Amino acid sequence: SGLVLVKNPHLDLMEEDVLYHLDLGTKTHNLPAMFGDIKFVCVGGSPNRMRAFAQFMHRELGLAGDGEDVADICAGSDRYAMYRAGPVLSISHGMGIPSISIMLHELIKLLHHAKCRDVTIIRIGTSGGLGIEAGSVVITDTAVDSSFQPRFEQVVLDDVVVRSTELDKDLAEELLACSREIPDFPTLIGHTMCTYDFYEGQGRLDGALCSFSSEKKLEYLRRAYDAGVRNIEMESTVFAALCGLCGLKGESCRFHLL
Amino acid sequence: SGLVLVKNPHLDLMEEDVLYHLDLGTKTHNLPAMFGDIKFVCVGGSPNRMRAFAQFMHRELGLAGDGEDVADICAGSDRYAMYRAGPVLSISHGMGIPSISIMLHELIKLLHHAKCRDVTIIRIGTSGGLGIEAGSVVITDTAVDSSFQPRFEQVVLDDVVVRSTELDKDLAEELLACSREIPDFPTLIGHTMCTYDFYEGQGRLDGALCSFSSEKKLEYLRRAYDAGVRNIEMESTVFAALCGLCGLKGESCRFHLL
Repeated sequence: SGLVLVKNPHLDLMEEDVLYHLDLGTKTHNLPAMFGDIKFVCVGGSPNRMRAFAQFMHRELGLAGDGEDVADICAGSDRYAMYRAGPVLSISHGMGIPSISIMLHELIKLLHHAKCRDVTIIRIGTSGGLGIEAGSVVITDTAVDSSFQPRFEQVVLDDVVVRSTELDKDLAEELLACSREIPDFPTLIGHTMCTYDFYEGQGRLDGALCSFSSEKKLEYLRRAYDAGVRNIEMESTVFAALCGLCGLKGESCRFHLL
Repeated sequence: SGLVLVKNPHLDLMEEDVLYHLDLGTKTHNLPAMFGDIKFVCVGGSPNRMRAFAQFMHRELGLAGDGEDVADICAGSDRYAMYRAGPVLSISHGMGIPSISIMLHELIKLLHHAKCRDVTIIRIGTSGGLGIEAGSVVITDTAVDSSFQPRFEQVVLDDVVVRSTELDKDLAEELLACSREIPDFPTLIGHTMCTYDFYEGQGRLDGALCSFSSEKKLEYLRRAYDAGVRNIEMESTVFAALCGLCGLKGESCRFHLL
């Protein structure tokens, strides 16, 4: 049906659903009227960048006005920022799996309540590249954990549930085809490694703590490369797992800065 | 010596240390001049609340001016916000272990480079209470994971290192004594449970996904209570682990809202 699924039998029994961290709710807002025509959701870590992205989309789509005064739909909360430009929603998610996970739970419920259909969700942002040209864009085919496995371990109460982290292969190919229409836009499809930590977890030598040698770091990153990893970031596994479970066509594109 | 420790032999070999997510650095900023006299650091999730806290501290300390125009020291980055009021630094850390962990690595290096001494760090914010009166403040003695164990599992490359999550007991008692000087300020010392997820991880029935019954949720929360847990949040284990390792006297006080 193309609808966004929630998998929670308790939700139907609730008189009101408050999306706490978005400052929206089913009683306080007419979600179908506000969001029913949304077809694309782009998410990224930084609120300023997601605002700039909404302004860019506004111009690209040729919408009325210059789009500079785009309003934060979640202005009542400083947890996340949300902007829209036509059928495109642009939302920030902060840094790390727990932060994006809260936003995705509430976004999925939002799209469900709004009765949106055939929504594509794309995560955009920067990441650390692995053995690729600086300035490259990596389109994720599969998100992997720090052991290079395509899985997300979700703690549910005190059980661990393992979830798949495959992303939409057709969408990845479609995005790759788009990139080829733009000159000098190095783009590739590869695995993305998702870590819980920026410093010790990613083999960085410049944190407050570091117990490994640069040789050990290089050996680890070489193994990651051999396993197909082309970039490293901190949100892709839970993004892939939640999109997959809730019927969202999801893709993750990261731009490799350094 | 009371100095803040870094445990990373590579740092001394670096010509410059860039604190990326704070938009500060050893070459671009005179960190000892800017921060050398800091004695207290208060951290919390929300940037707006940490701004309001800095304004409150400004008034409480009787500093010149009304403190309303307090400047964001990290204004060049939208990852975190940082304010100061006299010897007190007030910093936001976003939501979840990975987000606070990035901030703490860079804060610890900041305090180290600034040659700060005898710094006390206190985490403040809201949390979900467990079997306690609404409006209570919980001062954490020990942070525990979702299995109620006093440990933080840090992934270092692809190894798992287990770290202690004990907090400063004397500081906890000192804060409790302070609370007793204020009428109608219900405060207690207890364990704080730290989860990686707000919805499925905390037994909430209102996420986009929920596979457990309300009975199973209650049974889990009852076991948590019996293990000494009095509130639940998403940052305390890594806060306790990093403060402990780097010689910071750390405490976590959460206010139980609902």
